[in-house]
Amino acid sequence: MSSNSIKVFAPASVSNVGPGFDIMGFALNNPGDEIILRKTNKQGLKITKITGDKNRLPYNINKNTASVAVLSMINKYKISQGLSIQINKKMGLGSGLGSSAASAVAAVYALNKLLDLKLPKYKLLPHALDGEYCACKSYHSDNVAPSLFGGFILIRGNETPEIIKIKTPPNLFCSIIYPDIFIKTEEARKMLPSKINLKKVVVQTGNAAALIYGLTTNNKELISRSLQDVIVEPARAKLIHGFKDFKKAAYDNGAIGCSISGSGPSIFSLSDTEVTAKKIVKGFKIIADKLNIKNSVYISKINKQGPKILD
Amino acid sequence: MSSNSIKVFAPASVSNVGPGFDIMGFALNNPGDEIILRKTNKQGLKITKITGDKNRLPYNINKNTASVAVLSMINKYKISQGLSIQINKKMGLGSGLGSSAASAVAAVYALNKLLDLKLPKYKLLPHALDGEYCACKSYHSDNVAPSLFGGFILIRGNETPEIIKIKTPPNLFCSIIYPDIFIKTEEARKMLPSKINLKKVVVQTGNAAALIYGLTTNNKELISRSLQDVIVEPARAKLIHGFKDFKKAAYDNGAIGCSISGSGPSIFSLSDTEVTAKKIVKGFKIIADKLNIKNSVYISKINKQGPKILD
Repeated sequence: MSSNSIKVFAPASVSNVGPGFDIMGFALNNPGDEIILRKTNKQGLKITKITGDKNRLPYNINKNTASVAVLSMINKYKISQGLSIQINKKMGLGSGLGSSAASAVAAVYALNKLLDLKLPKYKLLPHALDGEYCACKSYHSDNVAPSLFGGFILIRGNETPEIIKIKTPPNLFCSIIYPDIFIKTEEARKMLPSKINLKKVVVQTGNAAALIYGLTTNNKELISRSLQDVIVEPARAKLIHGFKDFKKAAYDNGAIGCSISGSGPSIFSLSDTEVTAKKIVKGFKIIADKLNIKNSVYISKINKQGPKILD
Repeated sequence: MSSNSIKVFAPASVSNVGPGFDIMGFALNNPGDEIILRKTNKQGLKITKITGDKNRLPYNINKNTASVAVLSMINKYKISQGLSIQINKKMGLGSGLGSSAASAVAAVYALNKLLDLKLPKYKLLPHALDGEYCACKSYHSDNVAPSLFGGFILIRGNETPEIIKIKTPPNLFCSIIYPDIFIKTEEARKMLPSKINLKKVVVQTGNAAALIYGLTTNNKELISRSLQDVIVEPARAKLIHGFKDFKKAAYDNGAIGCSISGSGPSIFSLSDTEVTAKKIVKGFKIIADKLNIKNSVYISKINKQGPKILD
């Protein structure tokens, strides 16, 4: 690519992570979205091409995650350079793998590099969140932050969320099945209980804290015991046909843990060897075949880097 | 002391610890309760003396925390040796500092040593919990576990709680004021909301997880930001006259964090030097004097050891 254009990959991410509803997420090496950003002679911003979206994403720059994120930066930094965006979606929309976040992150990262703005990543975050907002109607950073910073992210606080990058075991593999069912994030949110019993809150906070401790101290048994969601998974599992069978297959094949990725329908499972990660994916496939569910599967370690420039 | 008797100290403890309602607690070097356990020729168990309780604790062995804990071991291990107990209370009853837990822990630890039962600590836990149950009518280990194992404890799970000892910064000082107001644990429980808004649950789980991460990675700033309880403290603070003033005094004097100890009325504050810990206690004292509240104050690092045999 010449210096008049740049191609950027940004990783998909698993958010919620069992007991970590709205406060945890981690990045994946695979899948992820690609953005090609080009300087143009004509002023303004334009989306020139979108691939891999089955014609479902808008070309209207005020409605597309990637362009909204770029517009947010253009406004903030008073950028006059004309720009065009090409978006290559590499995963299903509404997969629960942070697809809109990945596109927004790739877009702001690309703009920062293309125009040599030299902004640190944390300054890109609010603009990626602006992009994510247009897809999800909420300012949650549990997909955007992992995709942008890489690694396993814990989010603390309410009004100004604090992003904390957590140490994780060196060998942690993630197996994913994306059953091709469409669940809108907003609809998955409607499934959530508005009020939660204090006893459940106690169990959930204990599991969330213990999960972080298990990750930090490389204690796989503790990770396994604490990767349990007593609030959100029971409510959302109903939306995912075959969820119980997928989960059972993961554990039968040696998973450390298994839960819904984001608001679903994707299901993630952690394990500590690549061999086990592959077994789990095979197990997922068998269930999907049995239930006649179209699907995609992925295996990935935790992505440490976040977005990267492609040749 | 001869081998016919033993004197044991068990530490007080701070439970709940901000966002860690029912799942966190840590032990103190000071205060703590003492138990003297003596072999007797006459069969059976007897409480011979109780000091420091202002005549409020029962001599009935089926109603006293310490003796109930011992009885639980006597039944489990079919102990026929006659025994007498002396209890020296070294802190207020219903102080929120795990007084009943300390007595129960001291008692089971003493029995294990006196009869040379060689039981590991985790086998003493259920018996200390039986003792604690008779005071609190619930099987919570957030005071018993820190008092028994020492250190900072995270409790995970519901039916069979898992006790996790957390790494903590080497220099962490706890300043405590115990305002001499009587709050029954059961009454403090009644103040709790039964149902909690999902948004608050998200903030609380984030804070709990971040607090554990801050402790483990020795990040005082993170400990400070995450030591915030949005569910229980707002409900219980009403029971503690002057709570807001005490808390302000702690922060004004350099506290890392400040919240209610257990179900109150004691208030604890963390800091990272002994000088600051002393300043905080002075600040507490000034408020207490202003409000004309009788009180006791304590300064302690986190107790690492749990119970110990006294000469």
